[in-house]
Amino acid sequence: MNIKEKYMKKALLQAKKAYNKMEVPVGAVIVKDGKVIASAYNQKETKFDTTKHAEITAIQKASKKLNSWRLNDCEMYITLEPCPMCAGAIIQSRIKKVYYGTPDEKTGAVGSKLNLFKDYKFNHKVEVENGILEKECKELLQSFFKELRNLKRNERYGNNKNE
Amino acid sequence: MNIKEKYMKKALLQAKKAYNKMEVPVGAVIVKDGKVIASAYNQKETKFDTTKHAEITAIQKASKKLNSWRLNDCEMYITLEPCPMCAGAIIQSRIKKVYYGTPDEKTGAVGSKLNLFKDYKFNHKVEVENGILEKECKELLQSFFKELRNLKRNERYGNNKNE
Repeated sequence: MNIKEKYMKKALLQAKKAYNKMEVPVGAVIVKDGKVIASAYNQKETKFDTTKHAEITAIQKASKKLNSWRLNDCEMYITLEPCPMCAGAIIQSRIKKVYYGTPDEKTGAVGSKLNLFKDYKFNHKVEVENGILEKECKELLQSFFKELRNLKRNERYGNNKNE
Repeated sequence: MNIKEKYMKKALLQAKKAYNKMEVPVGAVIVKDGKVIASAYNQKETKFDTTKHAEITAIQKASKKLNSWRLNDCEMYITLEPCPMCAGAIIQSRIKKVYYGTPDEKTGAVGSKLNLFKDYKFNHKVEVENGILEKECKELLQSFFKELRNLKRNERYGNNKNE
């Protein structure tokens, strides 16, 4: 396992915490000088707050730790491609590089739906690399949405298994 | 003064609170059924946190008040055009309509630099109207940046006034 996979594994562990709370399983960690300085997972539903995406919370934790909104020498590992809100926060906080696991065709803002890091000139440029532990990151999401569909089906029609 | 100007005036009052703390003066209020349910101002520097833009804090407060991340029937008044992070948060929280005072040529994400509300199809469409109390919103920002430049000049070269 290389170093990128090691950190993505930590992001995946965060994503699993979200899964256990029936949240869309997305996790993120921020690394500075080889150390994880912030870890977070999506808590949108449990906190009733759309700004509680893993990336936003991770940025808040890292800023608190460094006592600065400037995260210039930091790298972020995220299991899923960030949405526009999170990609915007990443640019604003001046994070150096983002590694993500699997693309998000619907709202991905660093390559899939649009590319905030590349297509528009902001005052800070973020590097990006994807496909780190892509299979694991993708399967976790797929398994979550499958379970969610089953739950909703059972809620609606009842569980008809004759056990 | 019409109803839109009334609410923008409240956003301006918030922006002035930011000004008094030497923060870039941006303010926001969220309105539901004719009532202001959340007010906030930019606190990025004082809180050492880039996610402390007025819009993000206002969304968090409104979500807390309504006990829901869905702000469907809410309207937001902002003194300045939102950046990608805030425009993304506005889409995610399903706010119905945004009114803003003055455009932001550098990072404005709903018309100036890009248009997240129009150019990309997300699962929620936000209406937008600009130019509400534009002069006041713009002048507040201009006056802030002028004062900031003077302060920085005095810090660097000293105050040479012979008083």
